[in-house]
Amino acid sequence: MGGDHAPEEIVAGAVAAVRDHDVRLVLVGQAWRIRRELDLYGMVGKIPIVHADEALDMGEGALASWRKPRSSIAIACHLIKQGRASALVSAGSTAGVVATSRLRLKGQQGVLRPAIAVTLPTRPRPTIMLDAGATTDVKPEGLVQFAALGTAYAQILLGLERPTVGLLTIGTEPAKGNKTTRRAHELLTTGSHGMEFTGNVEGHDLLTGKVDVVVTDGFTGNVALKTMEGTIRTAFAEVRDAMTSTPAARMGALLQRRRFQDLRDRLDPDTYGGGVLLGLNGTVVIAHGASRARAVTSACDLAHRLAAGRIVERIREQVALTRTSRFGRWTHGDRDGTDRQPDRTPEDVPRLPEARPAADTVPDRKEPPAAP
Amino acid sequence: MGGDHAPEEIVAGAVAAVRDHDVRLVLVGQAWRIRRELDLYGMVGKIPIVHADEALDMGEGALASWRKPRSSIAIACHLIKQGRASALVSAGSTAGVVATSRLRLKGQQGVLRPAIAVTLPTRPRPTIMLDAGATTDVKPEGLVQFAALGTAYAQILLGLERPTVGLLTIGTEPAKGNKTTRRAHELLTTGSHGMEFTGNVEGHDLLTGKVDVVVTDGFTGNVALKTMEGTIRTAFAEVRDAMTSTPAARMGALLQRRRFQDLRDRLDPDTYGGGVLLGLNGTVVIAHGASRARAVTSACDLAHRLAAGRIVERIREQVALTRTSRFGRWTHGDRDGTDRQPDRTPEDVPRLPEARPAADTVPDRKEPPAAP
Repeated sequence: MGGDHAPEEIVAGAVAAVRDHDVRLVLVGQAWRIRRELDLYGMVGKIPIVHADEALDMGEGALASWRKPRSSIAIACHLIKQGRASALVSAGSTAGVVATSRLRLKGQQGVLRPAIAVTLPTRPRPTIMLDAGATTDVKPEGLVQFAALGTAYAQILLGLERPTVGLLTIGTEPAKGNKTTRRAHELLTTGSHGMEFTGNVEGHDLLTGKVDVVVTDGFTGNVALKTMEGTIRTAFAEVRDAMTSTPAARMGALLQRRRFQDLRDRLDPDTYGGGVLLGLNGTVVIAHGASRARAVTSACDLAHRLAAGRIVERIREQVALTRTSRFGRWTHGDRDGTDRQPDRTPEDVPRLPEARPAADTVPDRKEPPAAP
Repeated sequence: MGGDHAPEEIVAGAVAAVRDHDVRLVLVGQAWRIRRELDLYGMVGKIPIVHADEALDMGEGALASWRKPRSSIAIACHLIKQGRASALVSAGSTAGVVATSRLRLKGQQGVLRPAIAVTLPTRPRPTIMLDAGATTDVKPEGLVQFAALGTAYAQILLGLERPTVGLLTIGTEPAKGNKTTRRAHELLTTGSHGMEFTGNVEGHDLLTGKVDVVVTDGFTGNVALKTMEGTIRTAFAEVRDAMTSTPAARMGALLQRRRFQDLRDRLDPDTYGGGVLLGLNGTVVIAHGASRARAVTSACDLAHRLAAGRIVERIREQVALTRTSRFGRWTHGDRDGTDRQPDRTPEDVPRLPEARPAADTVPDRKEPPAAP
């Protein structure tokens, strides 16, 4: 139900994922609206629906996850907890999706804080950056964990055995940066973390593919990502102006039209956008709010691949390696489970009504579907 | 002596500033090399030279300011302290220039931390962003002061009476951001600071000209600035690829060449790059390390305008206004002078040899030159 074009484009994308990518999924939301859309593709009864009374609005932030315990995203989380799904995809408001899934799925054991990983449009292969906004205040140990999350993610997404990891800061020397990154650099270089840490990277390295995984806190990462998106948008608007400023230039533009379309598509955040929330007991793929069917399909495919690659287990293994630091100055080993949900104790969590499949649409299947 | 093309391009730029912009300046560095360059323009004896034995290398960081008390930049600071100059321009390593001028000029009274202000190439008028890297760990009160520094700077540079100020964070709602920006937002909205604070801005607003002054800490600002520069470079490389990928596209490119050159110039960091270090007892203009003569000329012109606009006094007045916060929870009123140079006490500062003009080149002038 989330995103600017829900449920039409979401359902269209899901149908394509089922047909073309062999993804098994469940649609969660207002049953009658989803059924109407499925009808257009002749897929009623072929894709199961789980009804949800409510949905988070795009403008709603973190608090909505408390106000709306029966939102489609909360119900989807519940399916994961029940083992009936392994991952979820949403194009809803990032703040709402992150808050709801943190609340419902909880942080996975050993992980201090979750992070959103995004892929940047570098060539020949994309660069992964995390955190893009899930955790704004991060301790040095948290950054080391983000490096572990990113490594596990890159192993599955890019198929690399030892993806290279860089720390986003303001100079290549270890002493450059703020207090947090300086200490994180120390931790990353001294311990044996089972990661390929190659040192600091700077803002201008983000699009050059210098490393496979760029690690940063959620505040800096979000600013950098939005700066990049805004700059690309401005640059293309300027280029379009330049290309159509004179009759001769307009003629030139006609000759280049197709290539430019390709280029704009590749760098357009609506195409490459979206992220994956890592570090929870379940995989959460957050598609761009403006996602059309094609973006939804690739988000479903991504969720499917991550679930098949057992991302949660990989993260657990990778994070466990980060604790074998030589100096034994780690603190997060003691804090598991207490530091992850600092705002409320588990008893405060509003009870979630039992998720009930809309009677006529969910087939009686025993095995959990791959990615709702 | 600083920069990739010193002293040739520096002297050429300085000569143009003297001839075309009526800037009065002093050249500081190795006297014989500067004299040789001046000779090319027939300006020997017309622009005074102050000899400096040493110069900071481009690779040298903050420590060099301690190791080299007779560096050209240290001597130039000394000229300001003596009242023989009102501002200095350098294309040297940013870290070295910032460290040396903090050490020599000291922070101006009432200012917690200095900030580097850069201008972003927005239209119709540029946007000022600070801090671009002078102070990486900033308290909320420091961000409020940066807003004051930026306001004073924008008043002179852009000629606006009440420039609008935005706080760079990750969402427009006051609650978005990290701990520091949330508190800074609170301080900026509750007090009467004599500033036009319009709220939060995000990364994608940097190039849209949404506000006149964007305030952020030196870490985030540096990452955002470099991300912008890197993205522009990547986008133009891709555009060039697209424009020359087929014979037809190449033909098109020919038709657009001039407009593209203009555009690239405008967005090229080597053109608009460089910054101004605000908050010290004297104005320090840091030109881009790759500066050619034209960039040096405009840096000299900028230094001249800031000195003529009495930027240091303006900052003092503007910062004084930020202390009249309604809640009286400010701490920086008590810390003036102690918090600015936390690493060393004044006694530790290595003694600077008396700056001595190279005998034959400095005319015996009473009035201080405007901008060395």
